[in-house]
Amino acid sequence: VRLYDNSSSGNAYKVRLLLALLGVECERVEMDIDAGATRTPRFLAMNPNGRIPLLELDDGRHLAESNAILCYLADGTPWLPVERWARAKALQWMFFEQYSHEPYIAVSRYILTHLAADSPRRAELERLAPRGVAALEVMDRHLATADWFAGDAHSVADIALYAYTHVAGEGGFDLAPHRHVRAWLARCAARPGHVPIDGG
Amino acid sequence: VRLYDNSSSGNAYKVRLLLALLGVECERVEMDIDAGATRTPRFLAMNPNGRIPLLELDDGRHLAESNAILCYLADGTPWLPVERWARAKALQWMFFEQYSHEPYIAVSRYILTHLAADSPRRAELERLAPRGVAALEVMDRHLATADWFAGDAHSVADIALYAYTHVAGEGGFDLAPHRHVRAWLARCAARPGHVPIDGG
Repeated sequence: VRLYDNSSSGNAYKVRLLLALLGVECERVEMDIDAGATRTPRFLAMNPNGRIPLLELDDGRHLAESNAILCYLADGTPWLPVERWARAKALQWMFFEQYSHEPYIAVSRYILTHLAADSPRRAELERLAPRGVAALEVMDRHLATADWFAGDAHSVADIALYAYTHVAGEGGFDLAPHRHVRAWLARCAARPGHVPIDGG
Repeated sequence: VRLYDNSSSGNAYKVRLLLALLGVECERVEMDIDAGATRTPRFLAMNPNGRIPLLELDDGRHLAESNAILCYLADGTPWLPVERWARAKALQWMFFEQYSHEPYIAVSRYILTHLAADSPRRAELERLAPRGVAALEVMDRHLATADWFAGDAHSVADIALYAYTHVAGEGGFDLAPHRHVRAWLARCAARPGHVPIDGG
């Protein structure tokens, strides 16, 4: 498979991390998002929504949306729960990640790490911060009673949430008050096959 | 099953619509979101993220996130594609809906229909509008070549996208330029068992 990728994107890292854990090779095509590489006619023909990560199968079909790609690649492996309730909970947490977590934590990180220090978008940080903290609190509350997000095993839900949570500090978020989250991050990173976000 | 619900919420409507199409009865508990009903300690004990819809099974377990609820309830029915690629595409469009569609189209509708005419949040509309139009354009481009969003049948992906698209006008969006979207909305509404958003 080929992955239209960006080395600093947590959404793309989700896919790289799962592929590493599965031991599957992929061809990475680094896309310069800031230079508009995902808005060219050629790229929009592959993904009209103009975003990475984008998975390209060997037969030329394309799949977008990081969490949909995770579910597709994990299908038939231990990373996607088979049991109906555990699979439902995996999806619940993956939708939580895209709606209540990523738009605050990842966007804060993007503003602080990709934009100039005098960017007008810095004004957004004040609105984003409490919502990002709220997402971390929801995660911490869950992890006070469970080791993983779906069922009793490390799954695609943990991969999806790990991606931006472990770099939340780059978005200005302090993980110190969220001790269950910190312990879970360590469990995730200890998994054989784990790779860092910038790890090639 | 019991559904913690809100009659004007498109996210809750998704669940009501699928249950109606499946012919499954549910007990609806109307939650007054504007009065903080989803932020009480009792509700947060059921869903720490403080949102409806929330599904309660007969054994007391709870499932949050509208699109995860759709997948759970549709599992084993024709509404959730069994074929791997069609299921991947259903999830792709459902994540698109929550990330690139709902935050613009549903939020614009909320501001215009739930908040006072002099709400300072009206200032957000200008930023939301082009992104909502972009989502409608992505949908229209897909529907120019296909009748449905995943595989060749009406599925949970169509239900998820129908919910806020068919009331996009209430958010200030004009569907006239998106003729494939309008034809698809009519196909969805013609389905036996279809119920309107405010239809009890």
